[in-house]
Amino acid sequence: MTSPLRLGIAGLGTVGAGVVRIVQSHPELLAARAGRGVEITAVSARDRSRDRGVDLSAYAWEDDAATLAARDDVDVVLELMGGHEGIAKQVVETALDAGKDVVTANKALLAHHGQALAERAEAQGRVIRFEAAVAGGIPVIKALTESLAGNEMTRVMGVMNGTCNYILTRMQSAGLPYDAVFQEAADLGYLEADPQLDVGGIDAGHKLALLASIAFGTRVDFSGVELEGIGAITIEDITHAADMGFRIKLLGVAQMTGRGLEQRMSPCLVPDSSPLGQLEGGTNMVVLEGDAIGQIVLRGPGAGAGPTASAVMGDVMDLARGLRLPVFGQPAAGLRAARAAQAAVPAPYYLRMRLLDKPGALAKVARVLGESGISIDRMRQYDHEDVSAPVLIVTHKTTRFALEEALSAFEATGVVQGAPVAIRIEQV
Amino acid sequence: MTSPLRLGIAGLGTVGAGVVRIVQSHPELLAARAGRGVEITAVSARDRSRDRGVDLSAYAWEDDAATLAARDDVDVVLELMGGHEGIAKQVVETALDAGKDVVTANKALLAHHGQALAERAEAQGRVIRFEAAVAGGIPVIKALTESLAGNEMTRVMGVMNGTCNYILTRMQSAGLPYDAVFQEAADLGYLEADPQLDVGGIDAGHKLALLASIAFGTRVDFSGVELEGIGAITIEDITHAADMGFRIKLLGVAQMTGRGLEQRMSPCLVPDSSPLGQLEGGTNMVVLEGDAIGQIVLRGPGAGAGPTASAVMGDVMDLARGLRLPVFGQPAAGLRAARAAQAAVPAPYYLRMRLLDKPGALAKVARVLGESGISIDRMRQYDHEDVSAPVLIVTHKTTRFALEEALSAFEATGVVQGAPVAIRIEQV
Repeated sequence: MTSPLRLGIAGLGTVGAGVVRIVQSHPELLAARAGRGVEITAVSARDRSRDRGVDLSAYAWEDDAATLAARDDVDVVLELMGGHEGIAKQVVETALDAGKDVVTANKALLAHHGQALAERAEAQGRVIRFEAAVAGGIPVIKALTESLAGNEMTRVMGVMNGTCNYILTRMQSAGLPYDAVFQEAADLGYLEADPQLDVGGIDAGHKLALLASIAFGTRVDFSGVELEGIGAITIEDITHAADMGFRIKLLGVAQMTGRGLEQRMSPCLVPDSSPLGQLEGGTNMVVLEGDAIGQIVLRGPGAGAGPTASAVMGDVMDLARGLRLPVFGQPAAGLRAARAAQAAVPAPYYLRMRLLDKPGALAKVARVLGESGISIDRMRQYDHEDVSAPVLIVTHKTTRFALEEALSAFEATGVVQGAPVAIRIEQV
Repeated sequence: MTSPLRLGIAGLGTVGAGVVRIVQSHPELLAARAGRGVEITAVSARDRSRDRGVDLSAYAWEDDAATLAARDDVDVVLELMGGHEGIAKQVVETALDAGKDVVTANKALLAHHGQALAERAEAQGRVIRFEAAVAGGIPVIKALTESLAGNEMTRVMGVMNGTCNYILTRMQSAGLPYDAVFQEAADLGYLEADPQLDVGGIDAGHKLALLASIAFGTRVDFSGVELEGIGAITIEDITHAADMGFRIKLLGVAQMTGRGLEQRMSPCLVPDSSPLGQLEGGTNMVVLEGDAIGQIVLRGPGAGAGPTASAVMGDVMDLARGLRLPVFGQPAAGLRAARAAQAAVPAPYYLRMRLLDKPGALAKVARVLGESGISIDRMRQYDHEDVSAPVLIVTHKTTRFALEEALSAFEATGVVQGAPVAIRIEQV
């Protein structure tokens, strides 16, 4: 049997402690599967005295994570601290420069510095693995990089922020407005210290950028992700979308188009009978589409100590078994710069507006749509409330350009009260 | 760049032709990902003259697949012929003995001879890969063997025969009896030449046995799979189960219990709101549960040229990239013999019976259940039809022993018409 694989763990939050728990709980199982032992030799965190519910006494302690990353008795550094600058980046760089492989759960770090870090790893003959960085325990990085390696990928989609999905599904089930459920999520500890990372779509956008890089062989381009959070989603839209057979999700979509790489992280409508539409609460889901496979759907826990540690250990076990790949599935030097395309792919849209109680109001709205080349799939007008009535329109496929033309023309009709809401319907 | 990986394809049915199509359609993409070319050098099938929709002129042709398997210009043999005896087995053995790796989609072969073939492969320092053998394009073998390698697996479940799921969901949606939908499926070409492979649960049982081996580190034990097909499922049960909030699925379940390895492939009820319950038509779904991950759900096409070829190519690309593992995730010599347990894990059950229109009939049935220690969760009695009324009972968790005791005691009550139906409710 080969010598044991020695782990150094930088960061002992819930994920780090979860990894310690796995390594301690069934060492024989890990050894049987890896063909060698898997051991922890050193750990590092900010506060040595904190009780993490695991016995750390057998491991060397380093106050400085970068010192841990360079230790001679460490083969693989687990960077489980988070943050895209500062110490986390330094730890990964130090580890690579010292000739060690890296496993990280840090989506922000890779979304911002993935290309540079991948090149650095490859220059050293080392690898960086990051299954835990995207959709927690769901093995999406492996499925995309390895299982679907025979496919030209056509689209990658996902609900990859459990907090946003919790908020949106809770709004619907409890009939509560956004602000109330946001506060609930805050009270439950579901939100990041900076809530915009969640509700602004930034965290999920990081994940999407990583998936897009693997799927399309392009350099990670987080700046090319069109970001729109869920803060403007109202209970009215959730309810009305449900009336029309849809659910609203913070959905990430990446696809290669004739005009470049389209990456969107934004609220979208999806059919309520689709797997994405049926996804409730904090669970994540990723949909992978390729020319041979058609579509597969992966569903699972997107966060939490156990699932995230499971993903970290999957990477560790690959390294223990000698399974090594370039960081983004092919050599970093060969990744193309992505040309960012702004929502080029036509789609149907959901429109909600309030029509004033004037003769011919609906005809005027319909004419504006027609003049922009937008045809109507379904329309529903509700009872008048005071001087106006809610109107819902589901369009056939149209371009965003045509849609924006129509939206700006509505005002001149004099029959639309306030600003119409338009939300893309993603065809799943 | 390393020298190209050279494939020999034995079997040019839909899957074999699908693999040829992938290799021909984007060679640069495959080479970029694998770090080397992936080429076909030789092919073999029964009928050379048949038009398969792909150009085979650049490849050497072998009439005899075993001769192909031993060719010097072949690195990896793709066994895509099927069948668990005869030529398929011979091809795999010949390839291994000639020092070649094998990729196969042949679940029957591995369910029957997996242990011997794994030992033979390992003796030669070769590997057998079989992602395509289980659930078609769904990357379940890789997820289980690699991504979840840090988990002690607790349960593996799945709907892994698309034909059965098509029949069951079509019965429900069209309100048709089993025989009518079976004939439809036959007319559509959905059934194997021996339909019992599908509707008898044998094909899905093969797949379950392979998953159980990886999940629990045991030797493949197809003979230990409790098999029950869908032939006895009636439209009445489908409709009544739906009334109670359930769907009937041909569900494979493997779990390690204190009494041994339980492997069942049988009709079960699952909640209609669960991912398994929502699975319609020919799509497959696998649910993997482990101590760290909790649960992940993988959904996708279980058959078809593209999806199956995608899975074969995932294995090929792994080999091209130098990713090599023991056949069942750990050395075959270390796999334990499974002790087969008969449905040891208690479960709730769905019972359907017809009660004669006699005073105290329901009380007698309830007393039988109580005397067997079975408590009732929900009960529904329908209107009388002629002399009897349908009664549905959903029990709380009970053992199969207690259930069988109750079933045999019903007859003596004199109030139950005919044989009651009992179907396990799998808690998902």
